[in-house]
Amino acid sequence: MAEWQRTHTCGELRDTHIGQTVTLNGWVNTFRSYNNQVFVDLRDRYGITQIVFESSDTEVMKIANSLGREFVISATGKVSARLSGKENAKLATGKVELKVEKVRLLNGCPTPPFEITEFGSELANEDLRLQYRFLDLRRKSIQDVLQLRHRICKTIRDSLDAQGFLEVETPLLGKSTPEGARDYLVPSRVYHGEWYALPQSPQLYKQLLMVAGYDKYFQIARCLRDEDLRADRQPEFTQLDVEMSFVEMEDIFRVMENLTRQIFKESLDLEIQTPFPRLSYDDVMLRYGSDKPDLRYDMQIIDCCDVANETEFKVFKDALAAGGKVRALNAKGAAEKYSRKGLDELTEVAKTYKAKGLAWIKVEAGKFNSPIEKFLPAAAQAKLRELLKAEPGDLLLFVADTEEVVCNALGALRTTLAYQLKLYDPAKKDFKIAWVVDFPSFMYDEEEKRWVANHHPFTAPKDEHLEFLESDPGKVKAKAYDLVMNGYEVGGGSIRIYSGEVQSKVFGVLGMKPEDYQSRFGFLLDALKFGAPPHGGIALGLDRWCMMLAGTTNIRDVIAFPKNAKGRDLMTGAPASVESRQLRDLGLK
Amino acid sequence: MAEWQRTHTCGELRDTHIGQTVTLNGWVNTFRSYNNQVFVDLRDRYGITQIVFESSDTEVMKIANSLGREFVISATGKVSARLSGKENAKLATGKVELKVEKVRLLNGCPTPPFEITEFGSELANEDLRLQYRFLDLRRKSIQDVLQLRHRICKTIRDSLDAQGFLEVETPLLGKSTPEGARDYLVPSRVYHGEWYALPQSPQLYKQLLMVAGYDKYFQIARCLRDEDLRADRQPEFTQLDVEMSFVEMEDIFRVMENLTRQIFKESLDLEIQTPFPRLSYDDVMLRYGSDKPDLRYDMQIIDCCDVANETEFKVFKDALAAGGKVRALNAKGAAEKYSRKGLDELTEVAKTYKAKGLAWIKVEAGKFNSPIEKFLPAAAQAKLRELLKAEPGDLLLFVADTEEVVCNALGALRTTLAYQLKLYDPAKKDFKIAWVVDFPSFMYDEEEKRWVANHHPFTAPKDEHLEFLESDPGKVKAKAYDLVMNGYEVGGGSIRIYSGEVQSKVFGVLGMKPEDYQSRFGFLLDALKFGAPPHGGIALGLDRWCMMLAGTTNIRDVIAFPKNAKGRDLMTGAPASVESRQLRDLGLK
Repeated sequence: MAEWQRTHTCGELRDTHIGQTVTLNGWVNTFRSYNNQVFVDLRDRYGITQIVFESSDTEVMKIANSLGREFVISATGKVSARLSGKENAKLATGKVELKVEKVRLLNGCPTPPFEITEFGSELANEDLRLQYRFLDLRRKSIQDVLQLRHRICKTIRDSLDAQGFLEVETPLLGKSTPEGARDYLVPSRVYHGEWYALPQSPQLYKQLLMVAGYDKYFQIARCLRDEDLRADRQPEFTQLDVEMSFVEMEDIFRVMENLTRQIFKESLDLEIQTPFPRLSYDDVMLRYGSDKPDLRYDMQIIDCCDVANETEFKVFKDALAAGGKVRALNAKGAAEKYSRKGLDELTEVAKTYKAKGLAWIKVEAGKFNSPIEKFLPAAAQAKLRELLKAEPGDLLLFVADTEEVVCNALGALRTTLAYQLKLYDPAKKDFKIAWVVDFPSFMYDEEEKRWVANHHPFTAPKDEHLEFLESDPGKVKAKAYDLVMNGYEVGGGSIRIYSGEVQSKVFGVLGMKPEDYQSRFGFLLDALKFGAPPHGGIALGLDRWCMMLAGTTNIRDVIAFPKNAKGRDLMTGAPASVESRQLRDLGLK
Repeated sequence: MAEWQRTHTCGELRDTHIGQTVTLNGWVNTFRSYNNQVFVDLRDRYGITQIVFESSDTEVMKIANSLGREFVISATGKVSARLSGKENAKLATGKVELKVEKVRLLNGCPTPPFEITEFGSELANEDLRLQYRFLDLRRKSIQDVLQLRHRICKTIRDSLDAQGFLEVETPLLGKSTPEGARDYLVPSRVYHGEWYALPQSPQLYKQLLMVAGYDKYFQIARCLRDEDLRADRQPEFTQLDVEMSFVEMEDIFRVMENLTRQIFKESLDLEIQTPFPRLSYDDVMLRYGSDKPDLRYDMQIIDCCDVANETEFKVFKDALAAGGKVRALNAKGAAEKYSRKGLDELTEVAKTYKAKGLAWIKVEAGKFNSPIEKFLPAAAQAKLRELLKAEPGDLLLFVADTEEVVCNALGALRTTLAYQLKLYDPAKKDFKIAWVVDFPSFMYDEEEKRWVANHHPFTAPKDEHLEFLESDPGKVKAKAYDLVMNGYEVGGGSIRIYSGEVQSKVFGVLGMKPEDYQSRFGFLLDALKFGAPPHGGIALGLDRWCMMLAGTTNIRDVIAFPKNAKGRDLMTGAPASVESRQLRDLGLK
């Protein structure tokens, strides 16, 4: 070991080390001079140790007095007890300090472009922090998140390995099979005019591995989609990809429930109850107005069509006459919290989701305070009180429209109310997880005038619905499932089609002609023909999992080198222009 | 559990299960009819179980008689002891068979395009097997290799996690910094005319993580190089990438020796001795004529310059006069194995490596049998006998040329002789591992008329050679090291430059102008300025490791979905033409 190298990390020294001569290496976190002494908090990934310069050696003191923030040094000296009353209970090393006898300056540092403290850098402009990402990554909170991410991935591998899964790598350079999102393309130098596509997911490869008999596959896989970015989306993302043969949905649920329990235990030391509730799509759309309900709070949507029909309120009656729905939320005890202005804001939320308006009732003892009260006969009022379990002080909110608009608008209102009424504590490590099942296989796309796959084209329809595949696609439910957590979809999967005939029919429902799907997915149809086993799987969005377990809402916190919201890496400048020689080689110039 | 689902795998049943009713799912591996019975070997990833149809149920027998190879079935029945004498000791399940009471055909299979047995498919054309990769992947030998690969990766992660390393993902979409190999490029849709590059390695990102204080990083990382392919090269490959802070070479050696020991133990149950020998570049070039010597056999190259000077052989004297070398190999006991034709073939090997010829001596008792015998005075002959430990029956081979040619030609001859003389058993799991150190930092490229980096431009020169950096680059040795195993380089790394000033100087030696390296590597120079710690690391070629541990020489055996030697995926057809809409979006049409 070279003389300058550490014998201990900056998080390691305790009072049991007192009297030993040790060497630490690290960064100057803070420094201050006092009475001819220099105190430095020396930092590395493992912690902070106070080191004290009070040497008679003028060379040592000269270096001590030249130090600045983020200088990298090696310091050798004796571990000493701190003076009584000077211990720092917040530091694991807080009972000791190092009396420096020898110091080496390993590297200097000019004044950083922003202060690297949680407080300071929260103030710094994010673009500047992304440009100097290597400095921002020094923040303890980001180091903690990346350690959490490591722990989650390690637990995934331990758990699935123990359950008999094989991790298999699938190609990055694949074939473009446009369906849904845009592919990133890579020009071939050997075959000018031909392109590879970067994977949006390993979906087809994992199905082929099942056909090949690998039985239980997983991969923590990088995926890429060239989509318009949003605050919580990056061009590349990571997913846990799982596939199993000879399974039904419950087999996959069991594996993922085991895994989830272990992830929470290992990374947050939290016990999660399994099995997770299985909720049907129709049910969660009715009760929560969302296929990814936040179950941390109850407040369910109640169907009021029957009562609405007994009122004289034209908006209700018209919606029902047109085949729509009237549904309501009861925001318990919220009546006095919403002034006219607050109610207007709620109305705006409903309108964002295409509702034409929002009817409200403030429940008082013996009467309704509401603009629509006059349209509600006493019997209807009584029924509403009963149906909505309305008590004085409650705020009832009604939307009357098509079923889709009613679900979306009340779903959004539910989320808004829960946040405003503090029905849950966003800072609390409280995770409510459920399976949503029985999704429709297809949705009708009014713009494109065709059926589109709700999950993806390889999802198996329920056996009992196969007969409607061509005659009435809207009636077909899928063997598909989403894993939802606190209002987010954190996973999704399905039992796959393993019959070439059914797969071809589904491509047909999606409006593909045989020559289309043969040229795009011929290898899959081949594979299904040559002895494909029943199989299914799931994918979990790993970035989202890390965000939620870390308690952050910024996806860039869980990725070491993220792009900004325009897909630019502000540190390296990528994407960038390239040399014309490179483009010539590719036949592009 | 659905009725058709397996209760056991095809590798699980033993005589302890006799009498139980079980269900198996799997593929028909073989089948034969005999005396109104049908015998099927049912296969899955876990093994093979014999199932017997001899039912009185005509439906069952009808299905049994319709079965073909690779059909997928579910079979329920009673586990029975095989008739005495009919046990199969080669199968773990060989003491039992399943008497089928119920069978379901899960999927059929037409006659496969080639036979899926080790023997049969070895005969099938590799292009055909790549086209139907999902069938070729059913071969047990490939399943074994991919399981081995999984085990190696799992062991790497367990070992490095236990040693305090964090796995951190680095971006796929990065910046093109051409130096060495060609980048794969990805056009940006948002910034037309700008390109991302896929990573050739995470080199710069891992150094930035050290600057950011992550201390111990690793990643099993996918890397891509758009190079002309060879039999053992794929456009995308996987490497174990490791970086550590505050280290010297020996720290990295220790971590990698631990890791290597664990990999061999977990994946092959082999004990590997550590530490590995450290051999200097100059020494291995002299003794083995290669910087990646195969140490499974000894046969070292011997320098004979002094004796050669005492001969009258013009070829020797001219080579020495021109500043070259005369060196030799002693192929012990090989004299009678090489006829004139055999010696001509060895001469051709030498010439391939630019030697002008090959001088040989067959050692006999008391005399040399050799065309050059007449040029060798008795004293020189005696000295050669002593120097080369020559005994009757030995074959001595001499090359006289520039040092580079002598090393390369004798190195190649050493490999050829070892193979022909069976100095090692290629089928034996015998691994000889060593570190090669003290590489030159720079090599002079005669074509480009400039110095190029021997490892890469971020490799630290030895401290004591820094002074020659600009005055005499050829004299500078690097803090670089390769891990070599059985004649292959299986890893390489270095202590990195952590001073911006030295880094700029090295860019200068490589012929880059300040504006060049600023625009390409400005972010690295920035990072080195803001408190970079001393750091270093290594990368191991995971595909090569898997090949060597699996004992295969075909890289496509260790990759689930490989490209062919022209970079084409014969299964999906990638690369392929794309829709013009996709190119329009990218501003490329």
